[in-house]
Amino acid sequence: MLSIVDLIRKKRDGGQLTDEEIKFFIESVTTKRMQDCQIGAMLMAIWQRGMEAAEIRTLTREMMVSGEVMKWPDSWKRLMVDKHSTGGVGDKVSLVLAPALAACGCKVPMISGRGLAHTGGTLDKLESIPGFNIQQSADQIRTILASVGCCIVGQTEMLVPADRVLYALRDATSTVDSLPLITGSIISKKGAESLSALVLDVKFGGAALYKDLQSAKQLAQLLMETGNSLGIRTGAVLSRMDGTIGRCVGNSLEVIESLETLKGNGPDDLMELVMTLGGMLLEMTNLAPGLSEGRKQIYDAVIGGAALSKFEAMMTAQGVANQTARMLCSAHTDYYSVLRKSDHQLELKTPIDGVVVGVDGLVLAQVLQKLGAGRSKAGEPINHSVGAELLVSPGQTVQKGASWLRIHYEDPAPGPDQINLLQKALTVGKNNREAEHGYTLVAEVLQSHRDTSN
Amino acid sequence: MLSIVDLIRKKRDGGQLTDEEIKFFIESVTTKRMQDCQIGAMLMAIWQRGMEAAEIRTLTREMMVSGEVMKWPDSWKRLMVDKHSTGGVGDKVSLVLAPALAACGCKVPMISGRGLAHTGGTLDKLESIPGFNIQQSADQIRTILASVGCCIVGQTEMLVPADRVLYALRDATSTVDSLPLITGSIISKKGAESLSALVLDVKFGGAALYKDLQSAKQLAQLLMETGNSLGIRTGAVLSRMDGTIGRCVGNSLEVIESLETLKGNGPDDLMELVMTLGGMLLEMTNLAPGLSEGRKQIYDAVIGGAALSKFEAMMTAQGVANQTARMLCSAHTDYYSVLRKSDHQLELKTPIDGVVVGVDGLVLAQVLQKLGAGRSKAGEPINHSVGAELLVSPGQTVQKGASWLRIHYEDPAPGPDQINLLQKALTVGKNNREAEHGYTLVAEVLQSHRDTSN
Repeated sequence: MLSIVDLIRKKRDGGQLTDEEIKFFIESVTTKRMQDCQIGAMLMAIWQRGMEAAEIRTLTREMMVSGEVMKWPDSWKRLMVDKHSTGGVGDKVSLVLAPALAACGCKVPMISGRGLAHTGGTLDKLESIPGFNIQQSADQIRTILASVGCCIVGQTEMLVPADRVLYALRDATSTVDSLPLITGSIISKKGAESLSALVLDVKFGGAALYKDLQSAKQLAQLLMETGNSLGIRTGAVLSRMDGTIGRCVGNSLEVIESLETLKGNGPDDLMELVMTLGGMLLEMTNLAPGLSEGRKQIYDAVIGGAALSKFEAMMTAQGVANQTARMLCSAHTDYYSVLRKSDHQLELKTPIDGVVVGVDGLVLAQVLQKLGAGRSKAGEPINHSVGAELLVSPGQTVQKGASWLRIHYEDPAPGPDQINLLQKALTVGKNNREAEHGYTLVAEVLQSHRDTSN
Repeated sequence: MLSIVDLIRKKRDGGQLTDEEIKFFIESVTTKRMQDCQIGAMLMAIWQRGMEAAEIRTLTREMMVSGEVMKWPDSWKRLMVDKHSTGGVGDKVSLVLAPALAACGCKVPMISGRGLAHTGGTLDKLESIPGFNIQQSADQIRTILASVGCCIVGQTEMLVPADRVLYALRDATSTVDSLPLITGSIISKKGAESLSALVLDVKFGGAALYKDLQSAKQLAQLLMETGNSLGIRTGAVLSRMDGTIGRCVGNSLEVIESLETLKGNGPDDLMELVMTLGGMLLEMTNLAPGLSEGRKQIYDAVIGGAALSKFEAMMTAQGVANQTARMLCSAHTDYYSVLRKSDHQLELKTPIDGVVVGVDGLVLAQVLQKLGAGRSKAGEPINHSVGAELLVSPGQTVQKGASWLRIHYEDPAPGPDQINLLQKALTVGKNNREAEHGYTLVAEVLQSHRDTSN
């Protein structure tokens, strides 16, 4: 009979846990046999001592089977795909990618999360659409995938219960940034979706969890290895996260930008991420012969309107009224007839003449969070209307006094210190070369190991 | 405003916590603002990263003031003494030392603990005396000290509440053996007794927490330094713990051996510990001019019967009927007319001719624990009558077939495996030299730093 106290001691001393011991640990977490203080101590011991690749694989697998593992019709099995991002500012990729993949023939049971700290959450963004219901049972997900091909939902009670316990406690115990725990949490949830292929958008840079490419790559490789070990063909993109993705940050504003993208008016960086991530998945599922063909198919689905139709169908399947969905997807709609607009807007002015070098996405996101666009604690309410629109792009020549940022706010209003912070987030240089120096959105594409696919 | 999550992160990363941060940590533990998972993570971070001496001093002081700090009449202040032992097998020193010190003019508000794992607890031993009440309020303690001079009691609800929380969680989270946490727990409780002098019996050897002298010395020095920093003159003895102290192990049996010692018939090793520890305290309180004079005063108090009178008075003051106390303290009493005797006894036989080298105290204690003399979990009931008497001493010549151990048992009876284990715990050598090789009970005496005394 294994003992929880002995297990903690073994990891505390840097030992490698056996498969049986990890299974016992996760079962004890799920059944609440392990006390909270013991889980806290174990998480800290794992943070301090790390885990070998074999331990991480077992941890992930045991977390995955701690609850329901989704089942799909045989004919779908090679088509099941999803994406995971490690979190960015203005990251609305999922809202465009899911319907684009569905338009290309994939089945996308996308299980997303809520925003925490400066990072936004896909579920929060979708909930700014009146009627959008992110809570869907496994049966409802199957029904939506059959009729539409994609859905974006919250984690159900039945799915990976061990992760729900560990995730909440990691936040409280300062053990979030541990490679084994991050890997277990991300991949177990994707494993429970019974995917054929998975693509990871691993961010690096000033507004990302990892500031440097090398650390992000280490995480990406561990995630890929673990995903592949569960039989999911897993690829990854290492993408830069210093500013924002697109020009809008904040829940309602990002929905509007996503819809504009689905109508063919998307910003280049967002389109680039959607095409790369989508193209990889189409290649991995053999729906496209190669990455470039996959990118083209995604591009066509977005530009041609097929993805927009899927998004409209997904909205109605997830509870949005037909008329509302149709209005949001019309060509020249007034979005604010449906979405909530903030009571107040405020434009910030460029302080000097020059060329826009960049905007510090982290600072922008942190200020917006304090204004109500995000939450500092799980469960806090947010204000969907709060956000900001960037009115300039990197490389753009600007003149002193021109507006560069429009803040959407309600209560609280931004204070002088916050305005000051935001002004400092804008960097204006002397010439164009400074602005374009070394900037690449997608730094690296890590392809799945073909030989481990099922 | 300090944040618990930030505090955990700082220690997780090996940072040194400030006085303010440690105060916040201990207040958060005491007020339950800190979640159990967070305490578990913090304990593990402290275990992994350790603490600087300054942090340990602050931790101890903050734990001490987390509850009531006892107050004494001015005339007692230089007389307040106590002893702490890190735990041994058959360690009945407190039962003899407390009344001996009281007989020498000290005030001894001895706050003791219960047994856990293989280590016995003074409170459990005393509770084998019918009527003995270890629960005494601060007022009752003052009254007993005024009339008798010593008491042996359990920790009250008001005293060092932070330690009660941390101690229970350390046990559950495999963070017991951490120098900062051990020091904080021991010294905070002694600090709350508002002592003038404290002596520590730090054990090393096969049946002790620390197996080697060096580790025990490190702990002893840290304990002394921390005690002195609170204004308590603190000394320590490093004593060997391989076999047993005295010849009896088990609650009722140890009470009998203590009473026999107080009647002048004590075993040498027990007398040596009592005289050294007591002598040091008499020196530190200036009741004796030096250690040797202090030892002599303690010896006289034990051999002359003054300590026995104090023990009798302490028993009645703590709830034992006058007649019972008198009978236990009479010259030729039948102890079992008062104390419970086990239903069964069993004698083990020496397997070969030779000289007794030693008995493995750890094995003996572990088997007795399983037979009901100890507990494996806090709160479990124990059987006071279960125990064992050693019928031989190290250095003694024995013949094959002679009895060497008498086991007192009830339910469960010792099984064949346990008998086997016990037989292996006895080492018989060929000659006397083997038995006496390098054996010293008190390896080192560490004197208090005079300059830090108050």
